[in-house]
Order: sequence, then structure tokens, then C-alpha cells
Amino acid sequence: MYRFRANGLVTLTTDFGSREPFVGIMKGVMLAHAAQLRFVDMAHEVRAFQAVEAGFWLAGAIRYFPSGTLHVAVVDPGVGTPRDLIVALSGDQALLAPDNGLLAPLAARGRLDRIIRIDNTCLVQFGVSDVSATFHGRDVFAPLAAAIAGGRCDPIDLGDEISSLSQEGWPVTTPRTDGGIAGVIVAVDRFGNLISNIDAAAVVALTKPSIAVGDLLVPLRRTYGDAQAGEYLGLINSFEVLEVARARGNAAEGLNLAVGAPISAVPAGATAHFRRS
Amino acid sequence: MYRFRANGLVTLTTDFGSREPFVGIMKGVMLAHAAQLRFVDMAHEVRAFQAVEAGFWLAGAIRYFPSGTLHVAVVDPGVGTPRDLIVALSGDQALLAPDNGLLAPLAARGRLDRIIRIDNTCLVQFGVSDVSATFHGRDVFAPLAAAIAGGRCDPIDLGDEISSLSQEGWPVTTPRTDGGIAGVIVAVDRFGNLISNIDAAAVVALTKPSIAVGDLLVPLRRTYGDAQAGEYLGLINSFEVLEVARARGNAAEGLNLAVGAPISAVPAGATAHFRRS
Amino acid sequence: MYRFRANGLVTLTTDFGSREPFVGIMKGVMLAHAAQLRFVDMAHEVRAFQAVEAGFWLAGAIRYFPSGTLHVAVVDPGVGTPRDLIVALSGDQALLAPDNGLLAPLAARGRLDRIIRIDNTCLVQFGVSDVSATFHGRDVFAPLAAAIAGGRCDPIDLGDEISSLSQEGWPVTTPRTDGGIAGVIVAVDRFGNLISNIDAAAVVALTKPSIAVGDLLVPLRRTYGDAQAGEYLGLINSFEVLEVARARGNAAEGLNLAVGAPISAVPAGATAHFRRS
Repeated sequence: MYRFRANGLVTLTTDFGSREPFVGIMKGVMLAHAAQLRFVDMAHEVRAFQAVEAGFWLAGAIRYFPSGTLHVAVVDPGVGTPRDLIVALSGDQALLAPDNGLLAPLAARGRLDRIIRIDNTCLVQFGVSDVSATFHGRDVFAPLAAAIAGGRCDPIDLGDEISSLSQEGWPVTTPRTDGGIAGVIVAVDRFGNLISNIDAAAVVALTKPSIAVGDLLVPLRRTYGDAQAGEYLGLINSFEVLEVARARGNAAEGLNLAVGAPISAVPAGATAHFRRS
Repeated sequence: MYRFRANGLVTLTTDFGSREPFVGIMKGVMLAHAAQLRFVDMAHEVRAFQAVEAGFWLAGAIRYFPSGTLHVAVVDPGVGTPRDLIVALSGDQALLAPDNGLLAPLAARGRLDRIIRIDNTCLVQFGVSDVSATFHGRDVFAPLAAAIAGGRCDPIDLGDEISSLSQEGWPVTTPRTDGGIAGVIVAVDRFGNLISNIDAAAVVALTKPSIAVGDLLVPLRRTYGDAQAGEYLGLINSFEVLEVARARGNAAEGLNLAVGAPISAVPAGATAHFRRS
Repeated sequence: MYRFRANGLVTLTTDFGSREPFVGIMKGVMLAHAAQLRFVDMAHEVRAFQAVEAGFWLAGAIRYFPSGTLHVAVVDPGVGTPRDLIVALSGDQALLAPDNGLLAPLAARGRLDRIIRIDNTCLVQFGVSDVSATFHGRDVFAPLAAAIAGGRCDPIDLGDEISSLSQEGWPVTTPRTDGGIAGVIVAVDRFGNLISNIDAAAVVALTKPSIAVGDLLVPLRRTYGDAQAGEYLGLINSFEVLEVARARGNAAEGLNLAVGAPISAVPAGATAHFRRS
């Protein structure tokens, strides 16, 4: 169950990159409001305008943090136009993000215990004023995050509880007629591993599953080291979703696939018409 | 007015990148001198040898930090050859940087209240010794920053006050005969937004201004969301300078423009001979 | 001599990059085990699978940190397959890394005072359990690092002391018949400087040495500023190894050389058959 008591730790996930001081300025604002805060950078190279990618990583990350951590996510192409801000509770963690699909991957996995749409009239008491049209990370998210993480307000007092969120951009998985499950590549990591939206549980439920991706059928293995160099393999990764990798290589380049490509897990009896890798 | 009382917070702006541990080593040296220091990374991917770009970002950033923050900037192609080190006071903030044009964007905006040229004979008392020819970030800036941010010295005691700084590499804006103002693109952010050296005030003073950049004339809007996808627009950005963006796109790529390109704001009556976007 | 008393500071060197939250998750785990820990990021863009590059940078970096710092390095292509974990003591610093060549550059320079192969049966007491096959940074290194840096265990109690480490991937230098010394480029920094495995002492011992790299012979200078723009030069860099640079330019691109290229320092009398730059 949800129960959030702020510990002063704030994680930051943005598409701000590291070439400009946007993230640093957000930290400056937060420290000006609450000097005791501490920060952990999650990721700042989220592909611009891909809010769900940020949410995908958060879905796998937040449970490893100390109780009472606030996770702030600013991937926000709608900045300056009307869209709601959300604070959500997930176990003993809290999240602050725009309602633009970013939190959909957490909602899809049943990880959100309580969702509050922030009432903008609340914001002035936390020092939100003189809001620019283009940098809400600095002018809205940072002072609000400082108030939550600094323990000056309870997230559930910030607005009305709501029951659903924007699902924009988050693909669903679908059952296949052969008994398998069809999904989509939702992220490619820097090693070129192709990461899907198919949960471990759905793969494990199949009889001797193989993985269909591009025009290949690849075996499911336990880890990268269980395959020969250059070989493709499927595996349940450390975020507990299905991924396709190339041992000591780059699967995305080798298969010429990117985010959005289809991927399926198929049971042993249904693989006859696939080309094997 | 200037009045600096160190709060133990140090921001870092460099061209050291994140591939090597140069920034980490600077932090190690500072912590070895003053264990209580805390750090915020501003930007470490400043284009090598573009000191004024670092200064441009600092000019927009430092006022958001808690009173008593020290901002250290090391973009220093002259390392190992004679050039002065400067400590400058800006309101309740302090800056430490080489005198190579880096601080020119702050000086141009009237943000520096006091400028001190550091007397090198002062340095030994702060543990500066055994200086390498190539890594003054570690051997000079870090121990000196630790002394300032750790409260072991007052910046104004570090040398003589001077009245002007190197302006190397910082372009000035000029009035146009049509009543507008001409400037230069001084930074391109990761979204491809073209950021100029033209202050908001100079643009706002014009009657119904449009923005001339490349061979286009683009409208001035409030925010990215006020334009259609693909459309170019001018706007006053969150750093209070004129910028040209492309809604949900990349203006630098679309217009094939980079740092150094001319840009102008022109009043309504003077735009007849421009091609409209 | 070695004597490690944890100060709560942990540095992190990985090949995890900054696009995904892998480093952030490691910090989350460590803070969940020991809330007082502080972190310094060394480098997270180590080229994937180049463990010795991480070790090269650590060899030059760790002595600048406060006494009692723990340096954690996770560049680990063998994750999920059998390979030992090592904790090593170097003066008043400690290192935690896989035994895959990563620590070879430190061992080669005589910097390791004590090397302990971690007994895996020790790990459960520090909260290591439920280990994934692919993310030991999170599941093994982080809880173990939290125990060491948090002062809950003495590194020398974690396993048996051993006398040698994997040398995988670390090239040795060899004497030349002309009295010089032959080495290899082991890193290229973001400025394009070509960094070798040849120690300063070996270069300084030569009479009026020049540097042979690619098909050029370049002079040895004190610093970048001592050469004309565009000129190539050798120098002893701030890590006290031989490096070849191009003044205000990029030596790696200009000479079309990369990691693995041969480089030599040759004494004055032996340079007749080289082409001079």
C-alpha cells in the first residue's frame, strides 16, 4: 500500500541532455527552496519528445530506491500549453510528471496506488510564480518537487484523486493466434539491446518459447554469456521484460531495427514457419 | 549589491565531457580539501575551446541558485600559458573562471558587481603546488574553489579589483537602419533551437517585431505550442534572449544554421523585402 | 602502506552510459542500504567492453580523493558467467571491480598494496540475493559497495588475499633496440589526444627524446600552448604518461589513429630514419 514520507532524495529523469545547464538549474531552484535535498540523476538523454520511454525506465527503477524518494520526470513536449501535472504514489515512492503518457508504463503494470491531478491554484504557496512559457522544469516542477521532497506538503493534498491517465504513445501487447504474445520494441539501450514491452511472466508462461524479431527466430537464453559472440538471443532482462541482444555485439544495428519494431514470443509448436537465426 | 557568504555548494561548467574522469577528479580534490562541499554539474559538454558559450549559459543560470553558491567554469584552451584567473561577484553568487572571454556574457548584461584578478602568490596557502602544465582544473581551480566554497577565504582578498575583462569571442548586438536590432546565434541547444545574443528587452521594444534568420522571416510567438508542427517561430526563451525554434522539429537542421549565423529582430514596417516562412 | 577506513564516499566508473538509469539505480540501491553515502561519477561512457580503459583512468585518478574513498568499477562483459570479484587496497583508497583486466593498469604501476578475491558466500550477509543474470551492478556491486563504504565490513575480511590479477587486454611496454621504448595508445580523449601506456619516467630517462607515432616523428613539449596551432606534439600529460596531441586540433583525426596504435619514445641519436612532422 501507498504511504509516502519524504526522505529528501529526488531523482531526475528528463530529455534535457547534458550540453546545457537545464538540469543544473532545476537543482539550483530546488536547493534554494530546500537546502537539504539530495539528487540522483536517472537519465537526461531520453529521446526528445518520447515521454513513454522515460516512464518505461522509471517503471523498472523506482522500487530500488529508499522509501520516501520522489521521482521527478520532465519529458514534456506540451510545455506552455494546457496539460495536467500528476503526482502519483507507488508503494513508498512518489512520482511527479506531466500527464502525457509518461506514467502509462507504470499504470499498465499496476504499479500506481494513487493518482492525484495537481490543482494549479495550489502552486503559488510553494513559490510557483512568474512561470515562463518554455521551462516549466525550472519554474513549476522544481519548486513543487522541493515542497514535496522537503516534506512541506503531502502529495494527496495537492489536488483531486483521479482513476486513469493518458495512455498516449504506450503500445499494448496482444495475444497471437498461435498461443504466443505480440509486443513492440519500446527502447534500445546503448549496447544496442532491443527492449520490449512484453513482461517476463507472459514469456515464462509459454512452452519452450522462441523469440520472433525482424525476420529471425532466436532462442531464449538466460544471459548474454550463454551465447557465442555474434549470436542473437532473447532473454528476460533485469527489468523483467523480454529483450533481444547480440552476444558481444549490437542487435539493433545487426538487425536494423529500432523503437516501434514488432516482436513476439511464440511457443515451441508454433515456430515451423520462422527462419531460424 | 555583492555580498558573498559561501554555502558549501559548487557548480561546475567545463568542456571536459563525461568520457574521462576529469570532472570526477576535480571533485575528489575539492572534497579532499573540504569534505562538506556539495556539487551541481551545470554542463560538461561545452564545445571544446568555446569559452563564451559557457559564460552565456552561466549568465542565465546563476540567479536560480541559493545565496552563497560558487560557480566554477573551466573552459580554458590557454591552459599552461599565461592568462589571469578571475573571481567575480554577482549579487550573492561568486564565479571562478579564466579571463579568456568566458565571463564576457555576464559583463555585457551588467551582472558582475566586482571583479578580482587573482594574485598567483596567494595560491600556495590553499594547497596549490606541483601544478601540471595541462590540468589546471585539478591543480589550481579545484583547491582554490575548495578554499572559497569552504569559507576559508574571502574572494575579495585574493587579488586586486579590476574594471574590465577579456571580451574575446563575445559578439555585440548592433542597431539596424530599419529600427531593428542585429545579433548572432551564440548557442544551439540539443533540440536544435537557435539561441541569440539579443536580449528580450531589445525585442519587446520593437513594434510588432518579426525575426529574420537565414533567408526567412518568422513570426514571434509566446511558446513552442503556439505554432503548428514543422513551423518556424521566434520566441523569448526562458533565458530571456531571442531564440528561433521549429515546432516539434529542429530549427538548426531545418535552416542549416549554426553558431555564428546572423539573426535580427525587425519592426513591422520594415519587413517588406523579407521572404516569409 | 594500505589502511582503509571508509569515509562514505563512493566513485563510480562504468560503461552504462547516461541514456538509461542504470547508474541511478545503483545509487538507489546503495542509498537504500546506507543513506549517508555520497557519490562522485568518474566516467560512464567507457567504451563498452573495454575494461582496461576504465582501469587506466582509475590508475591516474584515485590518489586525488579523500582518504577512505571506495572506487567501484563495473565494466563487465562477463556478467552472468563465472569471474571473480576483487576488492583491492591502494594506499588509503579501496577499489571494487571484476577480475577481467580492469585493475591491470593499477597493478602494472605497482599501485595495489593488497588484493582480495571476494568469497561469494560472504555476500548474502550484505543483502546480496535474488541476483539477475545481467545486472550485477545493481544486484551485487551496489549492496557490497554499500557495506564497504558504509563501514559495515573491512575489505580484507571479504575473502582470501591473492598475489596476481587478470592482465587481459593490458599491453606491456617493450625496450627498443635503439634505446627507446615502445608502447601502445590505450585511450583517446574527447579532444582527440592519443594517450599511451608509456610512463613519464621512461620518457624522461631518454636523451632529448622525440615521439614516433603513425609515420611521424613529433617533438616533446611541455604543454599544448608551446606549439603552434595545427602542430603535433608529444607531452607528459597530467596522468604522467606520454601523450600525442595536436595544438588547437584533434590528433586522432589528423593522424587517423585509434586505441591500439603503436607509439614510441626514441632518443636523439636514433631518429635519423623517421619523417619529421
